Amino acid sequence: MKAVVFDKTLKVCDTAKPERKKDEALIRVSLAGLCNTDLEITKGYVPGFKGILGHEFIGVVVEADDTADTGKRVTGEINLACGKCGFCIKGLERHCPDRTVLGIHGKDGAFAEFTTLPVKNIIEIPDEIPDTHAIFIEPLAAALEILEQITIPKLRDKSILLIGDGKLALLIAHVLQSTGCNLIVVGKHKNKLALLEENRIQTALLDNFKKSKFDIVVEASGNPSGLELGIECTKPRGTLVLKSTYASAFNFNPFHIVVNEITVAGSRCGRFSEAIKFLQAHKLPLEKYISAVFDLKDAVSAFKLAAQPETLKVLLKIP
Amino acid sequence: MKAVVFDKTLKVCDTAKPERKKDEALIRVSLAGLCNTDLEITKGYVPGFKGILGHEFIGVVVEADDTADTGKRVTGEINLACGKCGFCIKGLERHCPDRTVLGIHGKDGAFAEFTTLPVKNIIEIPDEIPDTHAIFIEPLAAALEILEQITIPKLRDKSILLIGDGKLALLIAHVLQSTGCNLIVVGKHKNKLALLEENRIQTALLDNFKKSKFDIVVEASGNPSGLELGIECTKPRGTLVLKSTYASAFNFNPFHIVVNEITVAGSRCGRFSEAIKFLQAHKLPLEKYISAVFDLKDAVSAFKLAAQPETLKVLLKIP
Repeated sequence: MKAVVFDKTLKVCDTAKPERKKDEALIRVSLAGLCNTDLEITKGYVPGFKGILGHEFIGVVVEADDTADTGKRVTGEINLACGKCGFCIKGLERHCPDRTVLGIHGKDGAFAEFTTLPVKNIIEIPDEIPDTHAIFIEPLAAALEILEQITIPKLRDKSILLIGDGKLALLIAHVLQSTGCNLIVVGKHKNKLALLEENRIQTALLDNFKKSKFDIVVEASGNPSGLELGIECTKPRGTLVLKSTYASAFNFNPFHIVVNEITVAGSRCGRFSEAIKFLQAHKLPLEKYISAVFDLKDAVSAFKLAAQPETLKVLLKIP
Repeated sequence: MKAVVFDKTLKVCDTAKPERKKDEALIRVSLAGLCNTDLEITKGYVPGFKGILGHEFIGVVVEADDTADTGKRVTGEINLACGKCGFCIKGLERHCPDRTVLGIHGKDGAFAEFTTLPVKNIIEIPDEIPDTHAIFIEPLAAALEILEQITIPKLRDKSILLIGDGKLALLIAHVLQSTGCNLIVVGKHKNKLALLEENRIQTALLDNFKKSKFDIVVEASGNPSGLELGIECTKPRGTLVLKSTYASAFNFNPFHIVVNEITVAGSRCGRFSEAIKFLQAHKLPLEKYISAVFDLKDAVSAFKLAAQPETLKVLLKIP
């Protein structure tokens, strides 16, 4: 089968179709999304990574232990957990210490004609959610994770700052807006901020942003300068949510975190079921967040476009 | 009067006795304690600092608007707040954005024969607390701040790691022990850890410490390697309390904070009233934590001793 493989360099090549193990589903992938993590892996973000990339996908089950599963249109939770440890028992499989992660760590990904996942990881997509929305389930779940971790105040005198206007940041903006909070989004790209303004989300270009103090700040820029701005703009005793990982280490002093008693909350993957519910409950302009759709065979060009600052979501269509 | 002045260099010199303003108390200082912050200031930690050092002190009120205050044995809250802003109204004067801080920021300190503080900042020391204990009220309040910010689990299957065995860390160890939690303290100094072991607090030398994951980690080492160890030893979804400031920036990547969804809670000054209650309720071996007492005129030597890694609390006696 055709697959997007990274092994020091990125290429599309023919590779063996994955073999389905017991308790797994074999999925024919139809659409996949490029995430910043994919881009970072191609820059060496996951040392020693070698294999098929991709963790945002939708597809159809073509084989499973229970024939009732075949034919289902699905996506899947990307953390493959042991199911037995303390985290798994608490429903926090995404923190299982023995997990592998689809297309990221120890498990071939979904930028391919076929992929496999444990049946317990796959989630059927309700008919009313079109492919162009369903492909956002994984990053939307990550955005919704914030609401599982912290309480967003709805009072008008409490203010929330979101730093960043990338693919994930836009989804976070919608999630925060849905709480009714007093939100402003600061970013670097007029075209991306305009998409939020169309949805009555207040925005500011970084160059014109008048710094002040916020009760909650969400840093989703992926840039160390975003973390610095976040610390500066968080009120004493306020909360700074870190949604970004950073490609490499940087010079940092947590002085203001200590002196201002800021709470910094790291935040990563979320529950797919919550994302599906959110898509059913809210009309999001997700088509506008798709910059381009490439054929799988043109994945290298897709990665190049995705790396441009103005680009939003880039998809791979698998014929 | 004699005072310990830092102005690029540290010296004991004759300086004008401070003038008491309305609503202030004039205090004759009798005993003062050296804190790491004092040491850091002499290394340039507070850019442009110029004036009298010292914020841990006890003394006697010699003059105040209300003559009933004179003669009281007191210490004082070190943050001089506006009393009007949102933080002050909520009882969080120590986060008032317009505050000055005794001996640290914009207000001459207490390493002197006399100091002044607003009457609302001074706190009478109950008779049953001897000077050798009362001098620990300020750092003990900082240690107790942790309990105001987070809930320490008492269950035996929840474990707490304290990193550091310096002056502040020892007080934190007693505060954590008082909650009945499952605590281990890791440090670099056998002599300091032995003092905790005498009080049935479990300790480990860093060289022999077998790293594992803890529900809560308190980093109080003041060393960037302590922060790194803290992140490594905090369970996914666990809490890392930062009690230390660091003298300068260092190379850092918050990757594991995000991926493991760690909550990092900065923690600084606490309430003096809580520290006094704690001293009344618990028998702490504080005399053992005093390494030396110097006369004010020998403050330069006192600073030198305090900077040695084996040293605990160094006091200045003002005759």
